Amino acid sequence: MMKALEGIRVIDLTTAFSGPVATMQLADHGAEVIKIENNKTGDPSRTWTPFVNGKGAWYPTMNRNKKSISLNLRTDEGKRILLELVKTADVVVENYKGGTMEKMGLGYEVMKSVKPDIIMASLCGYGQTGPYKNQGAYSNLAEAMAGTLYLTGFPDGMPCGSGVAFGDSVGGVFTALGILTALIHRNKTGEGQYIDVSMTDSLVHLSECFIGIYTLTGEEPKRMGNRDAAAFPYDLFEAKDGYCILSITNVNDWTPFAKAVGLEHLIDDLRFDTNKHRIENQNELFPLINEWSKQRTRAEIEKIFMEAGQAYSPVLKISEVIENEQVKARDMIIDMEDPDYGKYKIQGVPVKLSLTPGSVDTPAPSIGQHNEEIYTQIGITPEQIAGYKEQGVM
Amino acid sequence: MMKALEGIRVIDLTTAFSGPVATMQLADHGAEVIKIENNKTGDPSRTWTPFVNGKGAWYPTMNRNKKSISLNLRTDEGKRILLELVKTADVVVENYKGGTMEKMGLGYEVMKSVKPDIIMASLCGYGQTGPYKNQGAYSNLAEAMAGTLYLTGFPDGMPCGSGVAFGDSVGGVFTALGILTALIHRNKTGEGQYIDVSMTDSLVHLSECFIGIYTLTGEEPKRMGNRDAAAFPYDLFEAKDGYCILSITNVNDWTPFAKAVGLEHLIDDLRFDTNKHRIENQNELFPLINEWSKQRTRAEIEKIFMEAGQAYSPVLKISEVIENEQVKARDMIIDMEDPDYGKYKIQGVPVKLSLTPGSVDTPAPSIGQHNEEIYTQIGITPEQIAGYKEQGVM
Repeated sequence: MMKALEGIRVIDLTTAFSGPVATMQLADHGAEVIKIENNKTGDPSRTWTPFVNGKGAWYPTMNRNKKSISLNLRTDEGKRILLELVKTADVVVENYKGGTMEKMGLGYEVMKSVKPDIIMASLCGYGQTGPYKNQGAYSNLAEAMAGTLYLTGFPDGMPCGSGVAFGDSVGGVFTALGILTALIHRNKTGEGQYIDVSMTDSLVHLSECFIGIYTLTGEEPKRMGNRDAAAFPYDLFEAKDGYCILSITNVNDWTPFAKAVGLEHLIDDLRFDTNKHRIENQNELFPLINEWSKQRTRAEIEKIFMEAGQAYSPVLKISEVIENEQVKARDMIIDMEDPDYGKYKIQGVPVKLSLTPGSVDTPAPSIGQHNEEIYTQIGITPEQIAGYKEQGVM
Repeated sequence: MMKALEGIRVIDLTTAFSGPVATMQLADHGAEVIKIENNKTGDPSRTWTPFVNGKGAWYPTMNRNKKSISLNLRTDEGKRILLELVKTADVVVENYKGGTMEKMGLGYEVMKSVKPDIIMASLCGYGQTGPYKNQGAYSNLAEAMAGTLYLTGFPDGMPCGSGVAFGDSVGGVFTALGILTALIHRNKTGEGQYIDVSMTDSLVHLSECFIGIYTLTGEEPKRMGNRDAAAFPYDLFEAKDGYCILSITNVNDWTPFAKAVGLEHLIDDLRFDTNKHRIENQNELFPLINEWSKQRTRAEIEKIFMEAGQAYSPVLKISEVIENEQVKARDMIIDMEDPDYGKYKIQGVPVKLSLTPGSVDTPAPSIGQHNEEIYTQIGITPEQIAGYKEQGVM
């Protein structure tokens, strides 16, 4: 079956996490993503703990569907070969610290000089401009500057980073979005361009309404744990075998919700009869619901809430996500097998296209696995590849 | 200046948060996004607390650059008019509960029958398939099922939702990504298609390496607060005037880091000399660094860390994000003014395109502000619009 991005070649200079998330979006939908890996250790995520068969378990989860060639960009010959590859490409993506590509003599102007319609995307912690432009950053640093970290956690506790690195991954998704936007422009005009995305900007953009509300009302947004300023119940509750989320946000839901949790007698109670009253008296209402929920398993609560048509989700551990019927029904858990890692599972494709569905077709490549396939296309013979290997260029 | 998505018309049936984030990505880059609002109260976010001048402060932050027309889709005439508009459009987006559009007689097959190359995107909590397909969901419910909520919080505390609604917003960004992917396919082949995105799938996809690592190692991923399994220091530290994040993830950074925080004497200490040792002894090392940081303001720490070339971010409140020099230098804080809300600020455009930059040009519209402009294009006269208003159709 045809994929939407077939025929688009991406030279992928990214490593570790944020950049590979960006290029994974393109590869899942059929773009040819060629990872350029340094010839010694490859993508740093190959060396991140934990290890399986002596290999980092991070790496295969972010690099399915991609090809890998080895190339040493610290050598002049390596740079020259990179530019030969750029001539064959539609897109170049990198996620070095801001300004690094220019220092290496591989900035956008150089790319453009060899391929005038190239689309080049840079992704870094703070962006290519501003006082922090040359600073390195990790996901938690971006969350901290964007304000999302301050807002996460309980009111009586410390700020807390998100449990998955949304700074990295959201920056990656916005980079993919930028590349597709630029491809649409190129389709119309033939023009390439440069894309500058930062992890921090990406999170600022997703910080809900908080900037608007603060500037309109002067009220500083606060940490609220699992609660929400605008509705109650909307919280995490205990179950016999874990936790679950129970929510209402529609005023009409209070009656069926109260019935579901055995609080029929409180439906018209003046402490709880309106959303406003429930918010005011949430500390009285919470234990009444929690007392009900903690005597039941998540499966029992699910059955009751499904029948009542009320919003429910179990709070799942990763081991439970993998076995969840809804997640599995959505093809979000993919069985993989490769010579390096054996059998394992990774996350599926979230964008479900009816005519050109994305898919996970090949496991993450080993370093330089596609050297011969790719390099021979630009006239480098297998013998020359062997020579370059000896010289430390590939 | 030309924008990349100019000429693309989007019929936007989405409300509240997740869907409007999707269409905001398209509008910021020049697509004509026409919000279809019910003729009585409009987008529910117009009625969400807090209020300014009697109007919900949420609404304007997510709906800049869009047009609004009023239309009652519960009437046959409203449905007929919608399909007339679909004939003029490239994309339709909706974020009702799964299956709602079919029930309304406005599913993809109907859209396609009036506009064969239409691209239609649906975004909901759990997706259009699977046992939860007809369940309503909010951001925290998606976070709970995707496993990201369980992983957020401190090891000795409860799971905690993210402080900004990443379920909604990440689902929105993936929906925009799907639409652009489908547009690229349509450019090549002339074919439209249907896109099905769920908030839960989107978060599962971004749950890092955890699915892979769990299935490779059998170790259940755990909540780690602000720490990371793979490096230390990588944590939140106290400052005199708030909190900051200090991190090293490169082994070579330990020496300059230790010097920066006045711990030169511990550089070769066998408890801390390697990353492995620092992880093992993090509870000994943390207070030594924290003792140093809490005697200094964030500005003092920033200066020291910038000079040492070490990774640093202040943990910013929203009021501080707005004033931050890096965030401002990136044009991420936009001054707005409109008749409904007065002066306020909202978040900027995170995807920075060099040739066709996105921008925030117009404030969020009032309900039906563009009725005359849009409806006259499909042959409905101002007099007919007035009549439809009286009948409750517009």
